[in-house]
Amino acid sequence: MAKIVTLTTDFGPLDPYAGIMKGVILGIDPGITVVDLTHGVEPGRVDQAAFLLSISVDFFPEGAVHVVVVDPTVGSARKSLAVRHRGRVFVGPDNGCLGPFAAGDTIVEITNPEVVLPAMSRTFHGRDVFAPAAAHLASGLSISKLGPEVEDPVLLDLPTPRMKGDALEAQVMHVDRFGNLVTCLRIEELFAFGASAALRFEVGAAHTESFVATFSHAAPGTLIAFEGSSGHLEIGVSGGSAAKITGVKVGDTALVKRV
Amino acid sequence: MAKIVTLTTDFGPLDPYAGIMKGVILGIDPGITVVDLTHGVEPGRVDQAAFLLSISVDFFPEGAVHVVVVDPTVGSARKSLAVRHRGRVFVGPDNGCLGPFAAGDTIVEITNPEVVLPAMSRTFHGRDVFAPAAAHLASGLSISKLGPEVEDPVLLDLPTPRMKGDALEAQVMHVDRFGNLVTCLRIEELFAFGASAALRFEVGAAHTESFVATFSHAAPGTLIAFEGSSGHLEIGVSGGSAAKITGVKVGDTALVKRV
Amino acid sequence: MAKIVTLTTDFGPLDPYAGIMKGVILGIDPGITVVDLTHGVEPGRVDQAAFLLSISVDFFPEGAVHVVVVDPTVGSARKSLAVRHRGRVFVGPDNGCLGPFAAGDTIVEITNPEVVLPAMSRTFHGRDVFAPAAAHLASGLSISKLGPEVEDPVLLDLPTPRMKGDALEAQVMHVDRFGNLVTCLRIEELFAFGASAALRFEVGAAHTESFVATFSHAAPGTLIAFEGSSGHLEIGVSGGSAAKITGVKVGDTALVKRV
Repeated sequence: MAKIVTLTTDFGPLDPYAGIMKGVILGIDPGITVVDLTHGVEPGRVDQAAFLLSISVDFFPEGAVHVVVVDPTVGSARKSLAVRHRGRVFVGPDNGCLGPFAAGDTIVEITNPEVVLPAMSRTFHGRDVFAPAAAHLASGLSISKLGPEVEDPVLLDLPTPRMKGDALEAQVMHVDRFGNLVTCLRIEELFAFGASAALRFEVGAAHTESFVATFSHAAPGTLIAFEGSSGHLEIGVSGGSAAKITGVKVGDTALVKRV
Repeated sequence: MAKIVTLTTDFGPLDPYAGIMKGVILGIDPGITVVDLTHGVEPGRVDQAAFLLSISVDFFPEGAVHVVVVDPTVGSARKSLAVRHRGRVFVGPDNGCLGPFAAGDTIVEITNPEVVLPAMSRTFHGRDVFAPAAAHLASGLSISKLGPEVEDPVLLDLPTPRMKGDALEAQVMHVDRFGNLVTCLRIEELFAFGASAALRFEVGAAHTESFVATFSHAAPGTLIAFEGSSGHLEIGVSGGSAAKITGVKVGDTALVKRV
Repeated sequence: MAKIVTLTTDFGPLDPYAGIMKGVILGIDPGITVVDLTHGVEPGRVDQAAFLLSISVDFFPEGAVHVVVVDPTVGSARKSLAVRHRGRVFVGPDNGCLGPFAAGDTIVEITNPEVVLPAMSRTFHGRDVFAPAAAHLASGLSISKLGPEVEDPVLLDLPTPRMKGDALEAQVMHVDRFGNLVTCLRIEELFAFGASAALRFEVGAAHTESFVATFSHAAPGTLIAFEGSSGHLEIGVSGGSAAKITGVKVGDTALVKRV
């Protein structure tokens, strides 16, 4: 079976921290393929990490070990978790960044001193705990060997749309390089709320009634709504950036109204 | 033979999209090595993608599969291509981003439902079409199995220098991290135009008559012209950034005049 | 044994240069795993490269080949080095960017034409010299085959703290994505200077007397001093960025005073 470890962090594209984690992983098993899922989570933004993980893991083979290091409370009493969830394995801090995956079939606290680095820092458990634990798991170690079971992990349900008067409100979970605003509103939920041809989408001070199939159906510079590749409502601008035009950021909301 | 897939995209360094493509590829063949060639193409800039590809592929072994995802018209009627070109294989949208490589020995449209993901989105063919097609190709599938031959791919000849009065005009194809302006002017063409000691190079409002062998031959802060590592004329600043000083961007032009 | 090559450069996250180096490496031995340690060194900043290397290499298995390409004098008479240093191997320009590792057990100049690319550029020895040399070394070639021994490599001792009146002055070696200022002051040295509870830390116009174990011990927005994951003094802001608040950059200094 393929040995794959993915990394989802808020380290950004410039620091050596992900590279150091790969050194630890390859030192345990050089046959592991490490994939950078993203290091672009905004610092400390556990909901964004959980969301990006949730739209990505289905595209990886079963058995892949998914590590999340968005860890603003590193060094506190928060636990370090390993979770098996429907054939997938997740490793990360017990702070919600694993999202709904933390409610796994098996949930353990990583305490076994043989699977973590001997000298543990207070500030980089990605290197000292999560990387070696993930490497051992990818290499075949049973999750039950990592430590005792945990009954009450910190669960973070991903934000869901909610009614606000007659409108549907949805959080912006991610802003991508093209300035597209990726919301938590699944496209089925949108269609259940109203026919796309009769909806108005509001973000910041801007709005559009144009729901299109693809960018190529929109005039350049126009604000549009569309189904993104993850199956969620996105707001974008053909040949431009909705983020720039609207000033909207991760954590802000979009409103959908019937017209 | 080595199984290599390279990725050239405009996804930037922060999004999970390239990581998701790697999941798809490794799910098809975990023995494939995926190399990020660059995710720094400016959004939608197909000529820059084709240029960066053209200066890079000679450094990869034959048999490598080169995927380009710069795809502003994704979801339109544009085809998805796989191309064999002198022992190399290319995969990407039929929009010019493969540059002259699209004129291959074998050119097919990717239509075989067995080599693309079952649920195809309208906005991310990198994940749904190009990644799985490239993985199958790297894994040994014959290109002819992907779909029918294409007679008229969209060819994009890379920009070439042209005479403008007595001057030679060349497009800036890339601006690198050091602020160097990489032009489309090959150094042989420059020397055919004039002896480097008697030339004046103009970019934006700035100019230089200093053509040097390396940065170490230039006084810090001086604008210089030199042969870049790809064999093209570059304009730079020793210990500084020509892009910052001149404000010149990809798509702008440089002028070379005899003095 | 695992075949690992790491890359530490100032290429940034957008250029194809690191990808091209991987093509060269995989062309020589497709069994090599290439790890991006960091491409975030500031342009030309050899001391930062040496520092980031020094805090990282212990986390990689022995036998890994560590390539550094921070090379502002490429094309000059500076040598190209390969160094064996206590079971580790380093490759890079002879300009100090290998730091104290350049004082190896075996130090050779890379001159063997069979291990470099046939057509060598004046501006990209990362591709033409260091990548192929590292690949051959990772693949098992003896370092003595690369070229003649070098007696006097350029050594760069990493900056160390020094007394300035009654205060201890330490250089900022790295600023990470969280805006933490990583200094050259090892935590043992700090404790030898004074009890952490009675110290004042000054960076730019800001200062703090708060030395804490982890971020979770600090009020959000507060400037704090703490032991970073590399064992050095860092200055940060819980839930914020010390770099933004203080304007301090790599190469600036922090002062520690007894209070």
